[in-house]
Amino acid sequence: MITTIEELRRWSRQQHNSQKRIGFVPTMGALHDGHLSLVKTANQCCDSVLVSIFVNPTQFGVNEDFHQYPRSLEDDLRLLQTVGSPEVFVPNVTEMYQTGFDVSVHVGGVSQPFEGKIRPTHFDGVATVVLKLFLASGADVAFFGQKDFQQVCVVRKMVTDLNVPVEVVVCPIIREPDGLAMSSRNKYLSKPQRSQAVVLSQSLILAEKMILDEKIRDVEIVRKKIRSKIETAPDMKIDYIAIADPKTLHELTIINFDTVILIAAGIGTTRLIDNVIITTTMS
Amino acid sequence: MITTIEELRRWSRQQHNSQKRIGFVPTMGALHDGHLSLVKTANQCCDSVLVSIFVNPTQFGVNEDFHQYPRSLEDDLRLLQTVGSPEVFVPNVTEMYQTGFDVSVHVGGVSQPFEGKIRPTHFDGVATVVLKLFLASGADVAFFGQKDFQQVCVVRKMVTDLNVPVEVVVCPIIREPDGLAMSSRNKYLSKPQRSQAVVLSQSLILAEKMILDEKIRDVEIVRKKIRSKIETAPDMKIDYIAIADPKTLHELTIINFDTVILIAAGIGTTRLIDNVIITTTMS
Repeated sequence: MITTIEELRRWSRQQHNSQKRIGFVPTMGALHDGHLSLVKTANQCCDSVLVSIFVNPTQFGVNEDFHQYPRSLEDDLRLLQTVGSPEVFVPNVTEMYQTGFDVSVHVGGVSQPFEGKIRPTHFDGVATVVLKLFLASGADVAFFGQKDFQQVCVVRKMVTDLNVPVEVVVCPIIREPDGLAMSSRNKYLSKPQRSQAVVLSQSLILAEKMILDEKIRDVEIVRKKIRSKIETAPDMKIDYIAIADPKTLHELTIINFDTVILIAAGIGTTRLIDNVIITTTMS
Repeated sequence: MITTIEELRRWSRQQHNSQKRIGFVPTMGALHDGHLSLVKTANQCCDSVLVSIFVNPTQFGVNEDFHQYPRSLEDDLRLLQTVGSPEVFVPNVTEMYQTGFDVSVHVGGVSQPFEGKIRPTHFDGVATVVLKLFLASGADVAFFGQKDFQQVCVVRKMVTDLNVPVEVVVCPIIREPDGLAMSSRNKYLSKPQRSQAVVLSQSLILAEKMILDEKIRDVEIVRKKIRSKIETAPDMKIDYIAIADPKTLHELTIINFDTVILIAAGIGTTRLIDNVIITTTMS
């Protein structure tokens, strides 16, 4: 287990000196099968795999769950042994943010709507820590889950616009048997909340069917369907139901060839997000 | 001559594949002996040397001299042949800033006073383009002139805080025979302005003498001396005379062990800057 950036650089140089391609999976720990699927994909395309576990304070708002966020390092390390024992980087906060730290990376455009509106400092925190981790690790390829789709857009935009020499790979959402997208925050849910949470993924399945089978193209009809499905769960408070272009995240009025549907809702004190990318044929 | 980032990456990979260390000198062209001294230093410590020539629009304010800034590519290329013909990267603006470009790097602290106050968007533009050039070029070492001392502080802070894997080397100010710090903007000066401009470096020599020989430690006495020297030039308008800690750029009241004196003044429509770092003995 590596805990300092200096050690990490040493490890990274060793890999590159022996012509090894580094695959990198940044995480905040509390690992689940979603994370493990990223590591498995990394194992397939890279020679050396690095997982970082760092609950990054700068991507949490002041009233958010930084202190409550689940931390389970021993379980995480045990789980990582089941997927080929990647190298693990576990810095503490002062290793990542030394006294006087004062640089930030701001991504415009794709970071502004949806999560960006509700969590105004979130994506600057994400972009900054991801860039630091990319540069400290010498990553060649980095693996992200589609679950945090807007985050993927922000990271991709940063990589493109800053010429960061890292290839970004996006892996499918991993779901519980009933369809709930896996998330470390699912641990927060009480039993009744957990059973209501399934409406999110169910609403996306309904939307996908409307678009692919019934050929509905009007986003307001699709949005209404999603809303009424989510509203069958009495405690679910919708933050947004966005139907957008997956490249620009601009909201659509008519379903495109490629469309992403992003939903976010609160239940109790927990926020849940989910999404689906739908590709229509040109009919 | 390389003009695209794709070609630049290819060149960079070739150098690294043959174990060559890349030295990088970012410039805005209009090269003079100051730039050439950076290239010579790079030749000494690196296997491959890259010079970029790019007048970066994002570091100019709306009322600044972006359009007037001297451009002399043929002369520049000829001059570079006299210092070992380094590789040259000359992108155009759309190669560096593609349509929809929307990411910026902000450095706090050291970017705020002095130039940062007068040119509020300048250092974000500098930090962003320098990071892009570092990442696109795969530079191992980068060479900057002490002439733009606050810029050096901003770049160093960015490199440290973002874990950028580049070593920053700062080279001494190169001066005209009469002491004027070399600058591409000296070309703007009329003959009478040029002869007045010498008071800047002369004022710094006086200040250095006061501190080292007369052991003056009160910054107000030193500042007064500098001001009265500069004011002997009738057309010189002082922007600031800052006496600061060279690491933090915090202004001092008493001369430190290490002190930087930064001055900026306008003459006609031209702004000139100069500085000196003074290290006192502990007496």
